[in-house]
Amino acid sequence: MKAINALYEAHKIAFSPFVFETSYALLELGILESIYEHRDGITIENIAKETGVSEYGVRVLVEMAAAADILECIDEDTYMITKVGHFLLRDEMTRVNLYFTHDVCYEGLFYLKESIQKGKPEGLRVFGDWKTVYEGLSQLPDQVKKSWFEFDHHYSDNSFEDALEVIFRLKPKQIFDIGGNTGKWAIASTRHDAHVRVKMFDLPGQIKVAKENIGSMPDIASRVEFQEIDILDPQSEIPGGADVYWMSQFLDCFSEEEIEQILLKIRKNIGPNARVFIMETFIDNQRFPAATHSLVATSLYFTVIANGNSKMYTSSAMKYIVNKAGFECIAEHDLHEDSFHTILEIIPKL
Amino acid sequence: MKAINALYEAHKIAFSPFVFETSYALLELGILESIYEHRDGITIENIAKETGVSEYGVRVLVEMAAAADILECIDEDTYMITKVGHFLLRDEMTRVNLYFTHDVCYEGLFYLKESIQKGKPEGLRVFGDWKTVYEGLSQLPDQVKKSWFEFDHHYSDNSFEDALEVIFRLKPKQIFDIGGNTGKWAIASTRHDAHVRVKMFDLPGQIKVAKENIGSMPDIASRVEFQEIDILDPQSEIPGGADVYWMSQFLDCFSEEEIEQILLKIRKNIGPNARVFIMETFIDNQRFPAATHSLVATSLYFTVIANGNSKMYTSSAMKYIVNKAGFECIAEHDLHEDSFHTILEIIPKL
Repeated sequence: MKAINALYEAHKIAFSPFVFETSYALLELGILESIYEHRDGITIENIAKETGVSEYGVRVLVEMAAAADILECIDEDTYMITKVGHFLLRDEMTRVNLYFTHDVCYEGLFYLKESIQKGKPEGLRVFGDWKTVYEGLSQLPDQVKKSWFEFDHHYSDNSFEDALEVIFRLKPKQIFDIGGNTGKWAIASTRHDAHVRVKMFDLPGQIKVAKENIGSMPDIASRVEFQEIDILDPQSEIPGGADVYWMSQFLDCFSEEEIEQILLKIRKNIGPNARVFIMETFIDNQRFPAATHSLVATSLYFTVIANGNSKMYTSSAMKYIVNKAGFECIAEHDLHEDSFHTILEIIPKL
Repeated sequence: MKAINALYEAHKIAFSPFVFETSYALLELGILESIYEHRDGITIENIAKETGVSEYGVRVLVEMAAAADILECIDEDTYMITKVGHFLLRDEMTRVNLYFTHDVCYEGLFYLKESIQKGKPEGLRVFGDWKTVYEGLSQLPDQVKKSWFEFDHHYSDNSFEDALEVIFRLKPKQIFDIGGNTGKWAIASTRHDAHVRVKMFDLPGQIKVAKENIGSMPDIASRVEFQEIDILDPQSEIPGGADVYWMSQFLDCFSEEEIEQILLKIRKNIGPNARVFIMETFIDNQRFPAATHSLVATSLYFTVIANGNSKMYTSSAMKYIVNKAGFECIAEHDLHEDSFHTILEIIPKL
């Protein structure tokens, strides 16, 4: 990169919150949509008429957006949308990420430095006085919850079909679902196989929600059991007795040391023929740079909002911990359906 | 731009607050400096040792920075600085802008949409319950004030020398300095010419500060007068009697309608041979795209923090208002020393 371009890039970073909030306002106020509808360009005066926003308001936003290549100024007061603007308006992944950033993370990110210094999610203070976001999730404002779940689902909803294929090649009779959350996997896997039994392990709050979800499903309810566990409590145990131990987007909620302790807990009682499957979105297994970007940013969400000490890992970092905890990785399954997820298949080392 | 690149750019905007606060934290925690000192790369472990930041903290920051081209990952755990990172660390303009964005604007920008909807600086609420930032400036936290003044000075300190050359070609005997603020121009011009008299017009608070500054300067104090004025009060008047009416970075603090009213006030009493000089940083008169970017972002600072209805203008927009208020522009002086400023020289139309 030439020095003059690098300087411009540095400068754009220095003003990037202006561009970010401009993009959000352009979307929310219907201005980007209005400009998009006029492919040959539209004047500031007409945008103002169409959207009900003041001419002053339209003008400061479109001038910023033009400097950021979201719009193009084709004549003194006439603007049209660029390809970047088009994707901001129409690409689902971009939209989900932008609203997650605005609603869930923006204000808290101001405390990133403090979060790192204290090892605590100092940004969470903008929502409430909790130790982790998991304690407060149900009490977050509606719009925040909406953007949180849309983000969460966008990166997981397409992974289960592929994952079921991988797991059921082994024809498991008993699955332990560690960190089963609201019961999505328990439901998917018991519906996928009419004989399999699933035991779900999680904190009391999550177990309560999962029980409510699954209790009303007569086709599977009798094959799903629940066990409350605080996985970080040194006294807690994960029993033996499963053919498959399943952890989906669970270990990224913990620090490296905590992941090692969780794996050691599984290893303590695991049977000799059982297997452990770890499904994650690994930073280094992404096909698109946009996805990598999204994952490393998600790490900072964990730092500043979620719990202060977890992150999205590389597959090599995870395999290093796996090894340290006495397991070996015998297969690495890349899911192609969604192109984000990888499943590590691991067994206890002899 | 290819679609795939445009999608990536849209995606980067969606996560840009993460990159921004990462940059701020990398600077504040000394991590960028540490990496800069090791030109061939340094490991996460060693950065942590040098800076006293946890390895986890260093890791989440450098992974985000690498995705944003601020750092380059040259080996699994080893990073070096890129040209973009170098400018973030060493370029004074970038640093001034980044701290202004973080300290003064970041939190308030969250309310950009509301500011535009209400026509009020809704972001100012993060500092206090004032109508405009000017009311609260002296009560802002120290770090906020520091970043505000550094930003202000960075874009004005180099302009006066050139400006004095332009004005004193006319050998004025009496200058009216409208919006004289802390008295910087009054001091500079009376020191530049041992005979010129300056009368400064501003709000009582600013006049008080300027009087204190200038009262202790025996070489010029007797040639500087002060007049309190609320320029937006329809009853207020600007008298005749000056050879030169001077407004430096003053009109950008007002809306287009207000600027017209201010110019009409001057026109009412101005003598036939007097001239008005308007010094501004116009969006369309910048040599570097980084400077244009900076100015349009500054408009949003006015929207969300300062007063809700002003902005940085294009020279054509300003000349349009000048004309509407009964003046004609007879010269446009680009200042070369600082490369940011332009002086419009205007006279009453007959």
